[in-house]
Amino acid sequence: MSDNLPFAPPGTRADLEEGSALSPKFGPDGLVTCVATDAASGDVLMVAHMNAEALAKTIATGHAWYFSRSRGALWRKGETSGHTQRVVEMRIDCDQDAVWIRVEQQGGACHTGRPSCFYRAVPLGKAGTVSLEFRSDRTFDPKKAYPEAT
Amino acid sequence: MSDNLPFAPPGTRADLEEGSALSPKFGPDGLVTCVATDAASGDVLMVAHMNAEALAKTIATGHAWYFSRSRGALWRKGETSGHTQRVVEMRIDCDQDAVWIRVEQQGGACHTGRPSCFYRAVPLGKAGTVSLEFRSDRTFDPKKAYPEAT
Repeated sequence: MSDNLPFAPPGTRADLEEGSALSPKFGPDGLVTCVATDAASGDVLMVAHMNAEALAKTIATGHAWYFSRSRGALWRKGETSGHTQRVVEMRIDCDQDAVWIRVEQQGGACHTGRPSCFYRAVPLGKAGTVSLEFRSDRTFDPKKAYPEAT
Repeated sequence: MSDNLPFAPPGTRADLEEGSALSPKFGPDGLVTCVATDAASGDVLMVAHMNAEALAKTIATGHAWYFSRSRGALWRKGETSGHTQRVVEMRIDCDQDAVWIRVEQQGGACHTGRPSCFYRAVPLGKAGTVSLEFRSDRTFDPKKAYPEAT
């Protein structure tokens, strides 16, 4: 099976940008970037990656599937933790190398126990060293949600 | 100059996830992924990349700088089009390889003339070929905003 199936191979720039064919431009690693936002709040929950199979499964099932670069494996969000993502809407960007999904998040998105992976702010107007500012507490115990993680 | 300056080199997983030091985990290409959302609507405007210099300039100036992979060059958003992004807030994710900026977008974010790069929806519940659905019209003339683009 081609790494790109079941999607059409990327065409010209005009095809990619103005066409109605979904023809994702997977990178050399076979992945596109996926941004998941909370459908209610608009907050960015996580940034992850999808290979063709993860993208096809997400489209077919309406639940978020990803490809873990560190584990080299397909992964259904919530399969360990129960913290699934039901996809309310999926968008693709102009050059079809990034996907945005608006999701209903069960539990929290981040393996550290927070609702979003983006729980620290970077103060602006600084040159040199900056100190991150925590903006959200844990809402679940990551050791219970991910008992196999160390 | 190290590619990572002025940032601390990434430490342990615990340091990355629970520390207050900004120590971005730039990829082999020297880049982190950056998601820009509209501070008012929460819509994802674009997904782009930052090298250490783009990230440092964004933090110092409060305006979005990126690194263009296709042009291999640092780039201040809006330098050609006038469609600048003032950063209202910056967040970094758990493992510090992705940045989220909430911005006030002048004009539109997308070089095709739309407010967001994510102007097409992917219908869900489908297996096999899907047709994209356009969700926004052009709000500016890309030929006027980007006269040098072909």
